Amino acid sequence: MSSVAIIGLGLIGGSLAKDFRHANQFKYFIGVENNTEHANKALEIGLVDEILNLDDAITKADFIILAIPVTSAKNIASKLLDKLKNQTLIDVGSTKEGILLELENHPKRSQFVATHPMAGTEFSGPEAAIGNLFNNKAIIICDADKSDIDRVEKVEQIYKSIGGDIEYMSGKEHDISAAYVSHISHITSFALALTVLNKEKSAKNITTLASGGFRSTVRLAKSNKDTWEAIFSENKDNVLEVLDNYIESITLFKHAIKSGNAEVVKTLISQANEVKKVL
Amino acid sequence: MSSVAIIGLGLIGGSLAKDFRHANQFKYFIGVENNTEHANKALEIGLVDEILNLDDAITKADFIILAIPVTSAKNIASKLLDKLKNQTLIDVGSTKEGILLELENHPKRSQFVATHPMAGTEFSGPEAAIGNLFNNKAIIICDADKSDIDRVEKVEQIYKSIGGDIEYMSGKEHDISAAYVSHISHITSFALALTVLNKEKSAKNITTLASGGFRSTVRLAKSNKDTWEAIFSENKDNVLEVLDNYIESITLFKHAIKSGNAEVVKTLISQANEVKKVL
Repeated sequence: MSSVAIIGLGLIGGSLAKDFRHANQFKYFIGVENNTEHANKALEIGLVDEILNLDDAITKADFIILAIPVTSAKNIASKLLDKLKNQTLIDVGSTKEGILLELENHPKRSQFVATHPMAGTEFSGPEAAIGNLFNNKAIIICDADKSDIDRVEKVEQIYKSIGGDIEYMSGKEHDISAAYVSHISHITSFALALTVLNKEKSAKNITTLASGGFRSTVRLAKSNKDTWEAIFSENKDNVLEVLDNYIESITLFKHAIKSGNAEVVKTLISQANEVKKVL
Repeated sequence: MSSVAIIGLGLIGGSLAKDFRHANQFKYFIGVENNTEHANKALEIGLVDEILNLDDAITKADFIILAIPVTSAKNIASKLLDKLKNQTLIDVGSTKEGILLELENHPKRSQFVATHPMAGTEFSGPEAAIGNLFNNKAIIICDADKSDIDRVEKVEQIYKSIGGDIEYMSGKEHDISAAYVSHISHITSFALALTVLNKEKSAKNITTLASGGFRSTVRLAKSNKDTWEAIFSENKDNVLEVLDNYIESITLFKHAIKSGNAEVVKTLISQANEVKKVL
C-alpha cells in the first residue's frame, strides 16, 4: 500500500478515489484540483486526504492518475513524465491516440500506461463521484507493449480489484471503436435535447409527456461541456466519420417514412433490431 | 366490477390486463388476439381468462380496449363502434389524430374515449407485459369533449387506479408533442444501431466496449417494427418535421466539430444541458 495522486477530482477521478480506497489499493490519497470549490468539496466528502499543487503531489505520491479533460491531459502529459522519478503515471481519458503520440518518444515513456475505464454517468464534479462505478466495466489498456510489463501488471491488478474487465488494444483501434460505441451517443443525445428544447418552449409539456424512452435517449445530453468538447476535438476525424454515417442512416429513415413505403421502414427497423443480439 | 375485452395482447394490452386485474377494476378478462402463439401464451400466463373472436368478445364485454398497432386500430375503429351496444371503447395508441378523424362523425362517437398511456419498454408481445408499468406515467386523454362525460370519468378512474397521471389535450396537440418527446427518440435510436452495426462487424467489440451511455441511447432500437412503422406512418407529417429539425441540430454539431471551434461546441452542449432543468 502506498500513496496515489489523482490529478482532476471530477466524476472519474473521484469515483476511482472512492473505489481504490474501498479496495485498499492505496493508503493515502492526494488530490490536485485547480477548481477551488471542487478541491474543497473533495476534501469535505473525503475523496482525498489532502490537496496539493502538482509538483508537491508528484514528489509525494507513488502512483499518479491523470483524470482531467483529454486535451488538457495531452498538453501536460510530457511535462508530467519529465517530473517523475520511478513512479507510474496512468491517464484515464476517453481518447488515446493524441496522448500516446505526444509521449511516443519520451525517455520515460515506459513509466506511462494509457487506460480508459469505460464507465461514467451524465453528472460531473467531485459530488458526482460514486462507488462501484467500474464493476464489470471494460477497462481498455492501449499500446501496452510500450509500457514496462510490471507497471502494466500493477495497473491490471488495481483495476481488477475494483471489478474492471481488462481489454487490450491499440490507441488507434480504441479511438475508432470509442467514436462508435460512446462518442456518437453523446452527440445524438445533445442534438435530441436541442431539437426538443427549441420546439417545446413549454417545459411543462416536456416534463409531463417525456416517456421513459425519451428520458433514456436524452440522458447523456446532461453531460459536461468541457469533458465532451475535448473528446470530440481529440477524436475529430473518427467522430466526423461516424457522424457522416449516422446522418446517412437517419436520412434513410427520413426517406423511407416520407415515401410511405411500410416495408422499407420495417426492414430498416428489423436491421436495427439486430442490436438485440449483441446487447 | 365487470368484464373487459382487450383487443391485442402485446406489451401495452397485456400490461393493462395485469394492472387492471391487480387493481380489481374488472372481474373477467377477455382477450382478442389474431396471433395464435400470442393468444395461447396470454392464456397460459394468465393475462386473460378467455380468448374469443372479435364479435363474441364485444358481445360479452362491458368495456373494450383497443391495443393493436395504430394503423390497424384506426382501420377497424369505425366497424368496432358499429357493433357496440352501450359499452365504452377506448384506444391506447401512440398517435391520435387519425383515429379521432376516422370516428369524428360516427353516430356512437361519444362512446369512444381516445387515450394514450405514455409508458412502455423496448420489448413486445404478451410475455413483455409487466405489472406497474403505468404508475406515475402520463395518461393523455384526447378531445375529451367529444366523449360522454361519464365515460371519460370512468376512464379517468380506472387509469388512476393503476397510478396514471391524467392529462387532457387535443389530438392535434398530442401528436405534435409525441413526435418530439417520444417518436423521434425511436428513430435516433434505430439510426444509431444501424450505424454501429454497419461499422462494427465484430459483435464482440460492441459488447465489450458498449458503455452505459451507448446502451441507454440504443435501447429503443430493440422496439417492435410493426408498432413503430405504424406510428411513423400515422404521424408522418409531424415526425418528418421533427426529423428535419433534428438533422439540422446534428449538422450544427458536425460543422462545429469540423471547424475546430471549441467555444461553439461548448455553447451547443450548454444549450443541450438545459434539458437538466426539465428532466
